[in-house]
Amino acid sequence: MSIRIGIFGYGNLGRGVEATIRQNPDLSLAAVFTRRDPASVQILTEQIPVVAAKDVLLWKDKIDVMILCGGSATDLPEQTPALAAHFNVIDSFDTHARIPEHFADVDAAAKQAGTIGIISVGWDPGLFSLNRMYAGAILPNGKDYTFWGKGVSQGHSDAIRRIPGVKDARQYTVPVPEAMDAARSGKNPALSTREKHTRECYVAAEPGADQNAIEQAIVTMPNYFADYDTTVHFISEEELREKHSGIPHGGFVIRTGKSGWDNGCNHVIEYSLKLESNPEFTACVLAAYARAAYRLHQEGRCGCLTVLDVAPAYLSAQSPEELRSQLL
Amino acid sequence: MSIRIGIFGYGNLGRGVEATIRQNPDLSLAAVFTRRDPASVQILTEQIPVVAAKDVLLWKDKIDVMILCGGSATDLPEQTPALAAHFNVIDSFDTHARIPEHFADVDAAAKQAGTIGIISVGWDPGLFSLNRMYAGAILPNGKDYTFWGKGVSQGHSDAIRRIPGVKDARQYTVPVPEAMDAARSGKNPALSTREKHTRECYVAAEPGADQNAIEQAIVTMPNYFADYDTTVHFISEEELREKHSGIPHGGFVIRTGKSGWDNGCNHVIEYSLKLESNPEFTACVLAAYARAAYRLHQEGRCGCLTVLDVAPAYLSAQSPEELRSQLL
Repeated sequence: MSIRIGIFGYGNLGRGVEATIRQNPDLSLAAVFTRRDPASVQILTEQIPVVAAKDVLLWKDKIDVMILCGGSATDLPEQTPALAAHFNVIDSFDTHARIPEHFADVDAAAKQAGTIGIISVGWDPGLFSLNRMYAGAILPNGKDYTFWGKGVSQGHSDAIRRIPGVKDARQYTVPVPEAMDAARSGKNPALSTREKHTRECYVAAEPGADQNAIEQAIVTMPNYFADYDTTVHFISEEELREKHSGIPHGGFVIRTGKSGWDNGCNHVIEYSLKLESNPEFTACVLAAYARAAYRLHQEGRCGCLTVLDVAPAYLSAQSPEELRSQLL
Repeated sequence: MSIRIGIFGYGNLGRGVEATIRQNPDLSLAAVFTRRDPASVQILTEQIPVVAAKDVLLWKDKIDVMILCGGSATDLPEQTPALAAHFNVIDSFDTHARIPEHFADVDAAAKQAGTIGIISVGWDPGLFSLNRMYAGAILPNGKDYTFWGKGVSQGHSDAIRRIPGVKDARQYTVPVPEAMDAARSGKNPALSTREKHTRECYVAAEPGADQNAIEQAIVTMPNYFADYDTTVHFISEEELREKHSGIPHGGFVIRTGKSGWDNGCNHVIEYSLKLESNPEFTACVLAAYARAAYRLHQEGRCGCLTVLDVAPAYLSAQSPEELRSQLL
């Protein structure tokens, strides 16, 4: 008997979860929930219903874990606590500054309902957080650095698209190799925002638009670009579509630290991701934590958790005995 | 009030634990236990007793967690279950094939005594196991590769020292860069033992010894060297001492896997360690898990666990609230 998964929201992330479920024989897709007209939503898995979000409670006994695939700005702060009152839930809430508040909301709902909620699951927050935590606990006398990229930042791409004269745009965040080497050196350098990452922009301008003005508007944009060395390339809409339609991302968590009575030895712990699809990979992480949520609920646990609170073995389809004999 | 740690066995690993305790303000060293004459053992921490191993039970109420620093061949299989009957214990048991048996022995003793035992703590088994498990659970449609080095293998160095005519020797295991790149490619190559690592040997021979015979004895030695491309360098005893007296190690866990409905996207998860001192780093990992053992015992848990069973947050000196707001 497999773990019955509901997908709540069917965009890039929801489609990624659907694909991942097919790779995990102990998970099965029960239904996809959408705020759109269900008749307008075509999913890939055969014979699985698409259900109007407002009817979700009719599925209360037919879903073991609901994976929320909405956005962090407005969807998840509302949806995750609301659904935690009826389902075990997993989300990828990624507004770092608001995690404590979101945690409290989901925790209250889940504790009252006796459900499990695991929030902020993905790679940052998520796997990168795990690695910052493990490395920091093991090498307390040290310093960590997170680098992002090379990858597409949706927020920065959108910011460029709002500039008059821009038809479409794609922005890549690129880590600076020299800064990564400095981070690995063990010398604990202070690295400024500008030193750590550059920003590369590919812009398709409207015909006749003033490219100099667009470039100036980009590189001087506060918060988004002004603190970075930013490069702007003007290309055709076709080239943008052909060469820049993927959603790759990734990054590095590097911690160095010293050990020994006189701090004589230096160590480097490095974790990196190179992802061809940011949403599909996030979906893979969500699916593994859905398995964990199901098991924790089966054990009678309830309340809100993050990746830091879940013992690794809960994520694996293998039994503890198999893991000890084959993988440890 | 700090967590009172006992160190059982005072070699390289025990000294590493002693140093690490000084870096963790919530841990304190209570006593060092030795099978040698305690009067002959000089430790670095002032005013801390060195106690005969046979008197360890007198310390039952003065130690929160005992960190076992003996060897996996004969010490730990006996000591860890024996001490788990009286103390919370942590060990770095690293004979992969015998982990299930060791787990069962420690589990029985710890469950009867109501203590916690965490076994096979270090980096492999340990952090590398964690990373193989996380990556495998997240990318089930993929393959992982572990590379070791560049680092000193004590067992291989010892094997060379047993060859007639060898005064001293040091062996480095070296990962092959081309094999690592192949592992990262996502093409799931089958890599033979010979393709993954080379072995570099630095040998100080007795005066007048037959260097050709020594080299042949090394490169043809079954299990240790015959399956590898092995290079032998003869150097003086002084040079061996000067340039090769450290105990560096490290390695890489690389997993690639595919996502998407048609497995169209490839992802690479990579974890690496570059350690200037293998035993000191292992000691750092042991100390973090000692903190976890103490907390789990405070919660009323008992029995044997591995790194796969311990939720990450237990390792950190920070509170769950701090972790969520500052690190997640």
